[in-house]
Amino acid sequence: MKFCSECGKPVVHRVPEGDNLPRHICEHCDIIHYQNPKLVVGCLPVWNEQVLLCKRAIEPSYGLWTLPAGFMENQETLEQAALRESREEANANLEIENIYSIISLPHINQIYVLYRAKLLDLDFYAGSESLEVQLFNEDEIPWEQLAFKTIKKTLKHFFADRKQGHFSVHNSVVSERNRLGQQTD
Amino acid sequence: MKFCSECGKPVVHRVPEGDNLPRHICEHCDIIHYQNPKLVVGCLPVWNEQVLLCKRAIEPSYGLWTLPAGFMENQETLEQAALRESREEANANLEIENIYSIISLPHINQIYVLYRAKLLDLDFYAGSESLEVQLFNEDEIPWEQLAFKTIKKTLKHFFADRKQGHFSVHNSVVSERNRLGQQTD
Repeated sequence: MKFCSECGKPVVHRVPEGDNLPRHICEHCDIIHYQNPKLVVGCLPVWNEQVLLCKRAIEPSYGLWTLPAGFMENQETLEQAALRESREEANANLEIENIYSIISLPHINQIYVLYRAKLLDLDFYAGSESLEVQLFNEDEIPWEQLAFKTIKKTLKHFFADRKQGHFSVHNSVVSERNRLGQQTD
Repeated sequence: MKFCSECGKPVVHRVPEGDNLPRHICEHCDIIHYQNPKLVVGCLPVWNEQVLLCKRAIEPSYGLWTLPAGFMENQETLEQAALRESREEANANLEIENIYSIISLPHINQIYVLYRAKLLDLDFYAGSESLEVQLFNEDEIPWEQLAFKTIKKTLKHFFADRKQGHFSVHNSVVSERNRLGQQTD
């Protein structure tokens, strides 16, 4: 941030009185422009024994597989964001089951929140951000072609929990590069 | 947002190609300035049968009681944010137990994430944003003097779960005014 978004004058970068971190401050408007982490919200869609993955049609990680998820918008709830992203990326009709995986990524100022969700029908198809959308059994998951560590971690939890017959809520941290693998084709 | 934070020129407000919501766009820099919900993160500190509340020394809800919580910063994890806010507001030494209450507030673009945490000692004292910090048994909770619905909801869940001997993770929505009550003194 170089300029005040309210008045267009240059901002200064210093620690405000009573604070302990440098902020972008507009001395003309007398306002502090805080910067905060963003939420990436989505679903783990389940159909019987299978889960739904999307092959990314956009960077980063073009051509790799992921769960439907994206940046949360203002004026929506976490569940609404999760369902919206699943519709946008996979045209999937889902029913939320429970919040499932909450992952902090402090190095890129993101928090992932992923829900377990029941796929209600097989009428899904790729949205504009996906090349393909496909159901996978556990032994078919393209582990080496997953887009992000957050997704790999969540799928590992899911299959382990399913074996144990109990889904708990997983809260964890990915503190280094989230992107996985390289496109091979 | 009226001006681009990168170049200081006026932004326009329209739906970008391929999008479905109006955004603040700088046609000079060719960038879209997205606006996203903010995370409010904190703890529910527990000492034996008691919970720790802070009497607010700042608006909104000056003089009303709350759990230690505040806006998450960049470059921290949810747990680090929860512990930092508890230190800042109550100088409380805590050990995180588990993620507990996750609440969407779509009307004010906030998401609360509150952790159950064990108070490690009684050396707590009010930080600059608190007038007082105090331990309460369930029957002493100042229900009519709580600052926010999110806090009341989380405390209700906590005491109900404790009676049942099992703490689950609660994910809910507060879709109207979060502030509770009025200061009476």
